Amino acid sequence: MTTPTIEQIYQHGSVRQYKSYPVPAEMVESIVAAGQRGSTSSNLQMYSVVAVTSDEKRDQLATLCGNQAHIRQAPVFLAWCADLSRLERAAEMRGRQVVTNGAEHFLLAAVDVAILMQTATLAAESLNLGMCYIGAIRNNPREVIELLNLPRLVFPICGMTLGWPLRKPRIRPRLPLDAILHWETYDTSGEELEKSNNNKTLAAKLLDISYDTLRYQVKKYGLE
Amino acid sequence: MTTPTIEQIYQHGSVRQYKSYPVPAEMVESIVAAGQRGSTSSNLQMYSVVAVTSDEKRDQLATLCGNQAHIRQAPVFLAWCADLSRLERAAEMRGRQVVTNGAEHFLLAAVDVAILMQTATLAAESLNLGMCYIGAIRNNPREVIELLNLPRLVFPICGMTLGWPLRKPRIRPRLPLDAILHWETYDTSGEELEKSNNNKTLAAKLLDISYDTLRYQVKKYGLE
Repeated sequence: MTTPTIEQIYQHGSVRQYKSYPVPAEMVESIVAAGQRGSTSSNLQMYSVVAVTSDEKRDQLATLCGNQAHIRQAPVFLAWCADLSRLERAAEMRGRQVVTNGAEHFLLAAVDVAILMQTATLAAESLNLGMCYIGAIRNNPREVIELLNLPRLVFPICGMTLGWPLRKPRIRPRLPLDAILHWETYDTSGEELEKSNNNKTLAAKLLDISYDTLRYQVKKYGLE
Repeated sequence: MTTPTIEQIYQHGSVRQYKSYPVPAEMVESIVAAGQRGSTSSNLQMYSVVAVTSDEKRDQLATLCGNQAHIRQAPVFLAWCADLSRLERAAEMRGRQVVTNGAEHFLLAAVDVAILMQTATLAAESLNLGMCYIGAIRNNPREVIELLNLPRLVFPICGMTLGWPLRKPRIRPRLPLDAILHWETYDTSGEELEKSNNNKTLAAKLLDISYDTLRYQVKKYGLE
């Protein structure tokens, strides 16, 4: 069961090597505007994106985000942010007050951001651009906030490099659908099936895929 | 600057009235499998989705999720969950331990879930299905967790109704791009521009769009 959109989705892979050509500002505008068409909780649009093209600033961002070389190489870095400050400004201008400090608001804004940025991603990939999410934007949030001049109530959720792929990206493996999709209630029998059907257990699959990451996480959180 | 994918993205509107036809299980599988192709942090795939088709269970979910009638009407309800339990099971099977209780892990999983579900949404809409996100799945998380038999470390981030739209959905207004997209550093001059260029200030726009919601939020959080 496929469509051109689904075919495009299946071509996705993260791009970590880019050509040196710039991405026109109009193109960034088009993809962010497309992202805005995605759902947003109660239409509150609690998000902002900061597009960074300056070499110096991308260099600083690379240093802050785990020294990933493609942040220096890609012509555009996008910082996708939860933004509760605009709502506060809007309410203030009407002489009203809005409470924006709850965990629920933060989670809601984070989900809105992710819907925005993934919609923008699919728009970008349809224009033959490539991208890679930078979760490491949360490694040094204070420094990133300062660098991008983010006001109170604006928090970077995810970064992204954007540019023209040097080559077709590698498509990464995923867990079998049965391990992810449950019917009516949560059920781990999809995992058991994996175990009984072949020697490559779910554990092996998951850890083969992300073993280095897991080891990193385990080390980071002080367990070995 | 447009592509067939961008054109499709611009057709999105939340669907709250559905035809009574069922959605074939294979179709749900196709869209969740497409969702899996989206980026996931370090390929950890910390998500699960529970697809609910039973009338009784959808009725219970409707009651738990703000009594939204379309949860009873749509043939499928999808509960998109952050899932840190699979990683824990996988690590245990290898005699390892992973720390999965930090706020960073939760946020990371929530973003992964949102990327998964928005990719699946665009796949679904390309098949002419309609959907509506149900943030109210977090209104009564304990009861939803019990109903769906979610184990420890699995948390519902967002619900979704899925089915065949009764009619073309209404496309909702959005803030002007300048209010959302900032260049190099965060900058509210896009908002000021809105103010000076016409009487309809950003505050008015944002509050006209979501005034009822804001009033609801204000009331919910005890301010009037």
